[in-house]
Amino acid sequence: MPGAGRAAGVRRLRPQPSEEPPAQEEDQDLLLAAAYVSDAQYNRNVPFETSPRAIRLYYFYNHWTMQVAIYFFICVDLSLALFEEPALFPLPFLATSIAEVLCLTAFFGRLVHFAKVTPQMVFWKDMKNICIMVTIVLTLIDLIIYGSLEAVNIHSVRWSRALRPVFLINFPESRQIRRTFRSIRNTLPDILYVFLLFMFSVLIFSLMALKLFGDRGLQTVEGLPYFTNILEIAFELYVLVTTANSPDVMMPAYNFNWWYSLYFITYIIINTYIFMSVFLAVVYNNYRKHLKNEIRKLAYLKRHKMIEAFNILKVKVGTEFVVTEARWKRLARIVMPHISSPHLELLLRISDEGQKGHVDKMNFLRLADLLNIQVVTINIKRHPLEEWMPRVYQSSASLLVQRMVRHRIFVWVYDVIILINAIFIALDEKNPFISYAEWLFLSLYIIEILLKLYTYEPRAYFGKKQFWNWFDTLIIMAALVATVANTTIQSARKYNSQQILDIVLILRILRLLRIIVSIQRFRLIVTTLINIGPTILTFGGLVLVVYYVFAIIGMEAFHGKVRSFDPNFTTPDALVCGNPALKDSAFARDRYCKNNFNDLASSFVVLMELTVVNQWHVLAGGFALVTHQAAKLYFISFHVVVVILIVNIFIAFILEAFFVAYSLEKSEVETAIEKKIQELGVGIQEEEMQDGKLVDNMDAKDSGFSGDDGDNKRKALKGLYFRIASKKYRTVDALLQQMFESEIAPEDEGPSLDEILNFSPGDIYPKNPNFENSA
Amino acid sequence: MPGAGRAAGVRRLRPQPSEEPPAQEEDQDLLLAAAYVSDAQYNRNVPFETSPRAIRLYYFYNHWTMQVAIYFFICVDLSLALFEEPALFPLPFLATSIAEVLCLTAFFGRLVHFAKVTPQMVFWKDMKNICIMVTIVLTLIDLIIYGSLEAVNIHSVRWSRALRPVFLINFPESRQIRRTFRSIRNTLPDILYVFLLFMFSVLIFSLMALKLFGDRGLQTVEGLPYFTNILEIAFELYVLVTTANSPDVMMPAYNFNWWYSLYFITYIIINTYIFMSVFLAVVYNNYRKHLKNEIRKLAYLKRHKMIEAFNILKVKVGTEFVVTEARWKRLARIVMPHISSPHLELLLRISDEGQKGHVDKMNFLRLADLLNIQVVTINIKRHPLEEWMPRVYQSSASLLVQRMVRHRIFVWVYDVIILINAIFIALDEKNPFISYAEWLFLSLYIIEILLKLYTYEPRAYFGKKQFWNWFDTLIIMAALVATVANTTIQSARKYNSQQILDIVLILRILRLLRIIVSIQRFRLIVTTLINIGPTILTFGGLVLVVYYVFAIIGMEAFHGKVRSFDPNFTTPDALVCGNPALKDSAFARDRYCKNNFNDLASSFVVLMELTVVNQWHVLAGGFALVTHQAAKLYFISFHVVVVILIVNIFIAFILEAFFVAYSLEKSEVETAIEKKIQELGVGIQEEEMQDGKLVDNMDAKDSGFSGDDGDNKRKALKGLYFRIASKKYRTVDALLQQMFESEIAPEDEGPSLDEILNFSPGDIYPKNPNFENSA
Repeated sequence: MPGAGRAAGVRRLRPQPSEEPPAQEEDQDLLLAAAYVSDAQYNRNVPFETSPRAIRLYYFYNHWTMQVAIYFFICVDLSLALFEEPALFPLPFLATSIAEVLCLTAFFGRLVHFAKVTPQMVFWKDMKNICIMVTIVLTLIDLIIYGSLEAVNIHSVRWSRALRPVFLINFPESRQIRRTFRSIRNTLPDILYVFLLFMFSVLIFSLMALKLFGDRGLQTVEGLPYFTNILEIAFELYVLVTTANSPDVMMPAYNFNWWYSLYFITYIIINTYIFMSVFLAVVYNNYRKHLKNEIRKLAYLKRHKMIEAFNILKVKVGTEFVVTEARWKRLARIVMPHISSPHLELLLRISDEGQKGHVDKMNFLRLADLLNIQVVTINIKRHPLEEWMPRVYQSSASLLVQRMVRHRIFVWVYDVIILINAIFIALDEKNPFISYAEWLFLSLYIIEILLKLYTYEPRAYFGKKQFWNWFDTLIIMAALVATVANTTIQSARKYNSQQILDIVLILRILRLLRIIVSIQRFRLIVTTLINIGPTILTFGGLVLVVYYVFAIIGMEAFHGKVRSFDPNFTTPDALVCGNPALKDSAFARDRYCKNNFNDLASSFVVLMELTVVNQWHVLAGGFALVTHQAAKLYFISFHVVVVILIVNIFIAFILEAFFVAYSLEKSEVETAIEKKIQELGVGIQEEEMQDGKLVDNMDAKDSGFSGDDGDNKRKALKGLYFRIASKKYRTVDALLQQMFESEIAPEDEGPSLDEILNFSPGDIYPKNPNFENSA
Repeated sequence: MPGAGRAAGVRRLRPQPSEEPPAQEEDQDLLLAAAYVSDAQYNRNVPFETSPRAIRLYYFYNHWTMQVAIYFFICVDLSLALFEEPALFPLPFLATSIAEVLCLTAFFGRLVHFAKVTPQMVFWKDMKNICIMVTIVLTLIDLIIYGSLEAVNIHSVRWSRALRPVFLINFPESRQIRRTFRSIRNTLPDILYVFLLFMFSVLIFSLMALKLFGDRGLQTVEGLPYFTNILEIAFELYVLVTTANSPDVMMPAYNFNWWYSLYFITYIIINTYIFMSVFLAVVYNNYRKHLKNEIRKLAYLKRHKMIEAFNILKVKVGTEFVVTEARWKRLARIVMPHISSPHLELLLRISDEGQKGHVDKMNFLRLADLLNIQVVTINIKRHPLEEWMPRVYQSSASLLVQRMVRHRIFVWVYDVIILINAIFIALDEKNPFISYAEWLFLSLYIIEILLKLYTYEPRAYFGKKQFWNWFDTLIIMAALVATVANTTIQSARKYNSQQILDIVLILRILRLLRIIVSIQRFRLIVTTLINIGPTILTFGGLVLVVYYVFAIIGMEAFHGKVRSFDPNFTTPDALVCGNPALKDSAFARDRYCKNNFNDLASSFVVLMELTVVNQWHVLAGGFALVTHQAAKLYFISFHVVVVILIVNIFIAFILEAFFVAYSLEKSEVETAIEKKIQELGVGIQEEEMQDGKLVDNMDAKDSGFSGDDGDNKRKALKGLYFRIASKKYRTVDALLQQMFESEIAPEDEGPSLDEILNFSPGDIYPKNPNFENSA
């Protein structure tokens, strides 16, 4: 749900509904200004040419269809790995290469489009564009070489496949992923020295281990010599840092003498606890520092664009430059074609406080923020049933039902029903009585939803921001559909479809999640988690890129070396995963045969297991046995990149997101809007409307939904109300930016564009004397 | 080293060296004021009575011998567990019980002493004192019951042993440990809901697993049924959160169908990554919030005490109250008996800026901070050799040697030597050539130290804060002593003493650490780590308390259930750790027999392994087999307490310590001192003196040590210089406090004592309008 408002805001090019046909030039100006404003609104930082043709192209470039198309081609390009050797679903080389060329053409087209929009100088200076072009050329070369070799039956390596994520990273739309990569790159120098010191410490301890245990003739559980080779010791100790072989690596020495445990305890305290915490501290500190810098840059760029827009539209009234109301309205309509008239009127009243018929500079600069704040327009209407048959709906029986549904006990009763349901699920369902009970529960849940729809206004119940109501209803509906489908198939074919049955089972259990809705504290935690969800998806993108590159390399290096067999096979071949080199290895003993690099899906699962860390040394050892000891380097580098860098950045991000969510107040602009809404008497207190409360424990007196006495004043206003969407639904990025913006004085125009682009974290405290904390 | 200055500051009661014998009353006033100042200096918050007798008792109470004595008795009391059944070194019950009664008497004595010092009301209101008394009584009761039962040969449980850490926590000196416990307690309510939601999620997933996999007839690697019992599933999934059984727990389902891996991946993302990060975020956020509150409290209490002291000593001069110079000096001498006269003179000049013969209130309030700042007095003298035989020391050959030692290349040569040494160590030492080389390296290192002592002034080289020089020299000396001792024993008895040989080996390798000294960045990281070392020890205390309690419980529950045998034994009994219940268990297969609770030392090792988390489910499973499945609760609760709470607080602490260390500038007071030092022309720039640089790359021209032309002015000042000890050496606590103090306006007297004591984190933003950010 949180993304819905944003998606709806993607602007379309549309003729403005103005009475008199405006001059061509006026039109152009408005379009240009609107482009600046909408860039400011969405934090796009594409320098575009200001010629009329370039602006129209730029609008087209930003059109949502173009963006969806480019993401589609990126997805196709990345998913080609599923169909290429080693393939999950094999396709002939010709098919995949044609698809790839098609994708490359699309990327090239997008690039050409971009080149037409942006000034030539900027285009050729931008590393992103160069990267894309080089990658396209390299991919084509690789395709040709591979294709021609294939034609003469020589198998070579399709190395350019590892370059595919470049497209995902380098298109201007993937700003978030690029920022995370930049954050990693910026952290590298600082982390490098800590890493070197850490490696030095591991080596010192390895030397000690060699001297202390090497000559003792100790043996591991498997009967292998213990700690006799310095390289093996270093690897084992590196694994101990990840805790994956604790305490096994210690046991032989510990069994020999109690005192030797001190060596391992010291090692773990220094390397596992202290060094790993230091890594997190360094990563976190850098992340914070650079984030602050980036956000500052964004805030200044936004201000800069709004000033550009103002300068285009301004006219002189009296002594000051202003934007006339008519122009302001047309601009807002171009930027947000779907804005409702009352909403626009509200924004205008906020921007033109004195109702002077024009908007001054300071208020104009706030426009991008104003548009970004999701004002929910609530159209308070009577319940449809009340309009259709008021007598019945207002009858005492009906009112009793409504009062019952609104009562706290109604919620509790359903909580108890859910608990009983949970117990029934845990019981054996072979029992026919229990399987009938399933239908009973399902109907109880459906009755609950119907009762709620009877009591509350349906359009309010399924409002844009009523996440928990949607959640509730969707789960029940899905369970209903799946159960019905399952029963139909079952009775028709006397056969349980495994997939559908699994889905039914999962949906049945997911219904228990509804209990979260009843507990306020749970709902809060979950809402916070859902709120940071979109930004977690950025990490999804980042992880996808890294996984993809490692998976392609892994498939080239290890595919076919380990084969998986049906788990019931116990032939000697199946017991060693089809590779005799694995005889007596931990890899084969733990039945890890299916953890292989034989296709993209399996590779991703292996990489996931490596990310979780445990037993990664067994996987590394297995693949080292079937190839070469050097293969361990692949696994170590994966650990360093993913666990030490990316997971730590992920933790840093979650920490920061939580702190920001805890500490932030409403922004200045929001407060202004809210004040105006209250002044106009069209507001609903956020407390009254807090999600869920609407449904669970809102009394008629508070809600203003059921039309009793207190609401007369509101009804006079045609039943239209506004409220600001809860800050819980905003992204962390927006929160951070707002945090910094409150520090820029409203009259501060910021440094020049060049200065902004060259900000470095060092000069967070600005040289510009004009800059002062306005808080 | 960092603690050295602090230890030296422990004040002694001493007659003041005043010319005219002061009146008795004046003496009392000074003593009382000095008690306040020294409490402020060390952040002690003991409310003491102000009668002369109580003050003298209070000085005695704070005397270092008393503190050492009490810590000695606490150590004895805790270590009794080593000698009681199940004992590492068995002693008769009579001996241990007499020791325990002795300790209890000491604790009781300390408590009586405290009661004499503090007002009765305060004493009986303080939970700490009640706790100690109750514990003493309970322990005595337990001793009597156990002793009498023992006398009639009935073995019972010595349950009061788990209460022993109460003494460690509750004595006023363990402020830091108590603060960490408070921090945990404060975090509990917030973390509880997250934990419940997390457990709910685990249960939902368990239900799904039961439904999805329960009827499939799948088997684990060991051939056991897979996911058929809801309790076992919940345990396995809880273990998966700790990643300890990944990917083994997934393999049977994954082998059956690729799609089931999605279930486990979802589970890991939600529960391992997101929930565990949320735990860290909640713990960290609370830690920060409460830390800030505590620090604020401390800062105000300090201000309060200084005002008390001022009010005792003030006299009216003109319109304002001041403290006369003579009184001020005597006060400082009582608080810091060991302060040098020049240092005192320096502090006076800072406090009495106009040299008016008295100190005003604002400057007086800074006294505690002034005393806390470690001003290093550097007595610059010529090199002793230069004084004894100037001709020889200044001869061109000698100067050449000195220039050589100071040269950068000298450092590099020794770095290369260390590297060669490392290679030699890694090689086989059976070769006699290599064993001779050992002597060569040792002499090379000794020559290096001698050369440095020849070049630099020895007292400066071994200055208080020259950590790295000390480090260097101690390691070489220890290696020399150990090698000589080893050779002597070897030649005398034709026999290698294992212990000494091990120590020699470790020392030989530790010498390689000297390479850290040469690399600036490494030195910085290590210094930061050493700096937070003392506070890490607080965590040592905390962990000790928790380990002790769990170890005592573990020993009562599990001792003797698992026995360890010589690793070479392969009798059937040895293979199952002496307990047939362990047959075919992972515990026995991995040879974990020595991981048992048969004595305190072994218990601590097991708990350490549980803290590291990996394989904890094997340990839990083993002990559950030999007792009861409920034993797993012991291991789960250990995981929750230590890994989820304490380790996260540890990480939060390290993060905070790093951020504070990164972000903090010099304090106002330090700047004042530094300015004064510079004004008086007795300063040495910190950059010139930075540790190590003194030794490594200090040119004669910069250092002021070798007496060339530029130093004439300094020499005139009798060769006495000051500098402020680097901030790197201060504790995190001090840094934090300073951070907050910069926010209290100098004229702000803070809220009343009662208000201070009842600060809650909610009112960080003070109600007192007087309080303003003075920065």
